[in-house]
Amino acid sequence: MTVQSIDGPARPVTVLGLGRMGTALAGALLAAGHPTTVWNRDPARVAAPVARGAVAADTVGDAILASPLVLVTVTDYRAVHEVLGASAASLTGRTVVNLATGTPEEVRAVAERVAAAGADYLDGAMMALPQTVATPEAFFLYSGSRHAFDAHRTTLDVLATSHFLDRDPAVAELWDLALLGSGYAVLAGFLHSLALLHTAQVPPTAFVPLVTRWLHGMLAFMPELAEEVEFRSYGAGVSPVALNRVAVGNLVRTSTLRGVDAEVHAPLRALLDRRTADGHGTDSFASLFELLKPVRSG
Amino acid sequence: MTVQSIDGPARPVTVLGLGRMGTALAGALLAAGHPTTVWNRDPARVAAPVARGAVAADTVGDAILASPLVLVTVTDYRAVHEVLGASAASLTGRTVVNLATGTPEEVRAVAERVAAAGADYLDGAMMALPQTVATPEAFFLYSGSRHAFDAHRTTLDVLATSHFLDRDPAVAELWDLALLGSGYAVLAGFLHSLALLHTAQVPPTAFVPLVTRWLHGMLAFMPELAEEVEFRSYGAGVSPVALNRVAVGNLVRTSTLRGVDAEVHAPLRALLDRRTADGHGTDSFASLFELLKPVRSG
Repeated sequence: MTVQSIDGPARPVTVLGLGRMGTALAGALLAAGHPTTVWNRDPARVAAPVARGAVAADTVGDAILASPLVLVTVTDYRAVHEVLGASAASLTGRTVVNLATGTPEEVRAVAERVAAAGADYLDGAMMALPQTVATPEAFFLYSGSRHAFDAHRTTLDVLATSHFLDRDPAVAELWDLALLGSGYAVLAGFLHSLALLHTAQVPPTAFVPLVTRWLHGMLAFMPELAEEVEFRSYGAGVSPVALNRVAVGNLVRTSTLRGVDAEVHAPLRALLDRRTADGHGTDSFASLFELLKPVRSG
Repeated sequence: MTVQSIDGPARPVTVLGLGRMGTALAGALLAAGHPTTVWNRDPARVAAPVARGAVAADTVGDAILASPLVLVTVTDYRAVHEVLGASAASLTGRTVVNLATGTPEEVRAVAERVAAAGADYLDGAMMALPQTVATPEAFFLYSGSRHAFDAHRTTLDVLATSHFLDRDPAVAELWDLALLGSGYAVLAGFLHSLALLHTAQVPPTAFVPLVTRWLHGMLAFMPELAEEVEFRSYGAGVSPVALNRVAVGNLVRTSTLRGVDAEVHAPLRALLDRRTADGHGTDSFASLFELLKPVRSG
């Protein structure tokens, strides 16, 4: 008696939407032996999965009826509503996994619609690129029906490492945005650094070894920063606000002097200025959290 | 015949300024067997290095005369000028390594002053914390006199891995700012993400494993991004500007709706908006570099 026998590779799955990610998911499911039904608004896109063994459904409703587990990978929430609205009757008893990217507020509306149609709802966020699906690099976040997650976990694990976060369906999308936001900050900062070094004719590829080394150190520092925030213990200050304010000031001033757009770092300088003006210059860098969180929250 | 015999551990070194970093450097030199002379404006600070075998000089001039290699680790450039100005005569024939943090423009002024006094000048940037000095985590960047770097490299390697970047003394400081800037972007983005998740009562430490995993992926993506910038090849677009604009828009809108300060990401959104408006929505994310670099540069 193994998990395999309850939720084995033979379970049928439907994939609605065959963009890059949907196509990659269908490919991973087929490779793992799942009977896979696909549908796409533009039928030309079904050719690739069908060549690998998928069944193409003529309508969204047929596609949904083909499998107890339905993955929705259309481009945006308007498309999610169109797809699910066109086939409300067929949803009863299914598990819908909505993998579209949007806001927590958009998720709630879809979750309500799916529940009203008598289906289980899981919201999913794909932390992956098409080429990393079904590799150890990929991880997917889920929130919503714990029951549905447990029932389909083995199938979902075919796509990526699965993390169930919360019964509130909007939470996966919030984590998605939090991860994307941290990632965007990294890339925007990196491009600004390349522009700054460009003023001294430093080629971008020459910067990569040292910046990745330096940033690995920053990542190693995150557990400590997270603890400072979690316990509001901003006293230990090896990296006080006032010291960082001088460094970020140098960064902005030097960028501007050299004609490099410094706006990327201006908000951080403003936060450091405000925190210093509030009399918290000796608190640690992590204390900037107090200026970012909602004013009325604890 | 080894490098050791020209530049061995017995070489005397002077450390001017005993803040946290200066004290750590003196400690590392003493541990490696270097006769070490120290000076600090507030003499109370010399006690610790003296207890470990350092010699305390009464004046800056005495300290400089004690060693061919002089490390300056005072807090800012005003202090650098005070220290060097008080002892110009004693500088002749020495190598001055200026480890203070400032701007490339400040470096140039000190480099000129040191050269005028008949000394070799090296500018250094310490990519380290006091506790990582003399560990594999630390690396120091140098620019200025290549001759002085080669002559003292073995001694400098006692402190951290040494990287010589350029004969222009200002370049180490520019790299320092570029590395700091990338690091600050990481930490500011991380704190914003914690604030966003705080609205769903997610504890900061719970976010750390997934965000560090995600950001390791971002670091792995940097060589590709650097190549796109270096060769201005923005066409390949697995991550086009327009797609990222939607995601960053969601991030800013969701932050704002939940009362989280979204300013940290506002400049990136503005860059994505501008790039799209300029007709480059299908270019890759890396193409934002074109908006950051100085307008007149190539």
